[in-house]
Amino acid sequence: MREFANKYGTVLVVGGEGEKCRDVAESYGFRDVITPGDIIKANAATAPFRALTESEIKNSRDLLARGGKLSDIVVEAVFVFADSRDWASDLQIMLDIAQSKGGRLETRSENFDEGPPIYFSHNDVLWSAAHEHVRLGMGALRKIVETVFEDVTGGRKLKTHAFGKPQVSTFEFATRLLQQWRATQHGLAESEPPETVYFVGDTPESDIKGTNAMNEKSKNEWYSILVKTGVYQAGTEPKHKPRKLVDTVLDAVNHGIRREMAKLGTRKDGKGRKLPLDDAALKAISEGRTPNFDLSVDPFAKAVAQ
Amino acid sequence: MREFANKYGTVLVVGGEGEKCRDVAESYGFRDVITPGDIIKANAATAPFRALTESEIKNSRDLLARGGKLSDIVVEAVFVFADSRDWASDLQIMLDIAQSKGGRLETRSENFDEGPPIYFSHNDVLWSAAHEHVRLGMGALRKIVETVFEDVTGGRKLKTHAFGKPQVSTFEFATRLLQQWRATQHGLAESEPPETVYFVGDTPESDIKGTNAMNEKSKNEWYSILVKTGVYQAGTEPKHKPRKLVDTVLDAVNHGIRREMAKLGTRKDGKGRKLPLDDAALKAISEGRTPNFDLSVDPFAKAVAQ
Repeated sequence: MREFANKYGTVLVVGGEGEKCRDVAESYGFRDVITPGDIIKANAATAPFRALTESEIKNSRDLLARGGKLSDIVVEAVFVFADSRDWASDLQIMLDIAQSKGGRLETRSENFDEGPPIYFSHNDVLWSAAHEHVRLGMGALRKIVETVFEDVTGGRKLKTHAFGKPQVSTFEFATRLLQQWRATQHGLAESEPPETVYFVGDTPESDIKGTNAMNEKSKNEWYSILVKTGVYQAGTEPKHKPRKLVDTVLDAVNHGIRREMAKLGTRKDGKGRKLPLDDAALKAISEGRTPNFDLSVDPFAKAVAQ
Repeated sequence: MREFANKYGTVLVVGGEGEKCRDVAESYGFRDVITPGDIIKANAATAPFRALTESEIKNSRDLLARGGKLSDIVVEAVFVFADSRDWASDLQIMLDIAQSKGGRLETRSENFDEGPPIYFSHNDVLWSAAHEHVRLGMGALRKIVETVFEDVTGGRKLKTHAFGKPQVSTFEFATRLLQQWRATQHGLAESEPPETVYFVGDTPESDIKGTNAMNEKSKNEWYSILVKTGVYQAGTEPKHKPRKLVDTVLDAVNHGIRREMAKLGTRKDGKGRKLPLDDAALKAISEGRTPNFDLSVDPFAKAVAQ
């Protein structure tokens, strides 16, 4: 993100509560961060059905105080950092900028092919929240931006960008983090990636698709496990197939342990460090069950309490 | 609309400020009108990023006071009566209902083919408002509902309905109104439709498309005129071609008058009532100019003042 902060001058940052995303962007080093609220404050006609609240008016910056018109401002990139709190006006403003002459506010390109890049911080169309059924997420808004752009420009295409899953770069970044963690926590050589990474997720379109793509590309193994407790609905056909389908995250962890132990149990050449397995555990593994470990703490207590 | 009020019991009404659309629906005779606010009040997890305001909480009805769960309520039809003030939550709730078992709240259909009908009160993707550039309208939200439905159901299609232009039924309704008006105002036989209707509009996709379609179907002539003061941008190729392109509404009216007068001027058989044209007016028409009328009032004063 710091790379982007160096590359782009004025950026539009979308999403989140109040000024949070502007603060985050500035903490990344972005030098000139404007928000949809700033634009609406300068020209209320931008979003005919959105009235800024008093605190939004107070916190939004006065773009006209720069001594000119909105059309003096050129947005060099758009970042959707968190879920939009007002889809209609954020969509309108993103489309205005996508249709502009090179990012210049309140202008229109003749061919609609010179807007600045638009980045979304993730890509899940659906996510599993407190509601019984999955909710629409940022990926839906991303799709909407692209679809409506095509509609209003008579068929021109807009290609926006997304960080995060299922982009392989996200998994490569995770690999680097894992290597650092293995080095600092376990004294392993930082240059060695883990032999196998078990990736547990609830969303076929991001978690499983990305893990499988990373597995194709990577020297080490990325093993996708899909759980039934989130976006994926048991009984349906996932668009991207996991290596293993289980009920819960605990089942996924048990599956990974079993699979690793089975590898060790059948490994004859003595390579790799053996785990201290007693006869009962080996028997359990051979029967496809999870061995009983003596755990001093419940590793899931924290996750459940969160 | 009264027909719908008789046909459907519980309906979801979307759009508008506060409770206005509920009031409108009830004035049409709808017997049980619920709003997205009612649903969010009963289950805040429905829209994770929307917090109802105090007045929304106060005005929204308590659906659980009916003595049960949300899943006891079956929505028989959805009406978008005015522009949505919160696209994300209205979209979520419309999609929830479109994916439900026959309109039953908080349920999911197995095949996503049993949702109740969804009606939009108009269909313009873009409209010309106070902003220099056209703004997204209800037609964009309609398209979004259909597109995102397809996305989240793995490719199932959702066909929503729209009232108003460009639906031919809207033009047929206008014809009936015109016939009544001609009868009461001018004593003409109500059974006779006007020979020619000049339809002036700014939006090729609704005004011109609809007028041309009506002209195809109708015995009388519907003549489409596109103006340059609204959605249509001068110099571009309109998706639907008008019979005449002019600058302003005044030019459209002048064009209609000229065309009618030219018809009269060249009509030799004496059929039809002649307008009292003096020599100067006839000369003006023959030169393609608009005759000067003595007008006691400025017919555009009211339109401009509005």
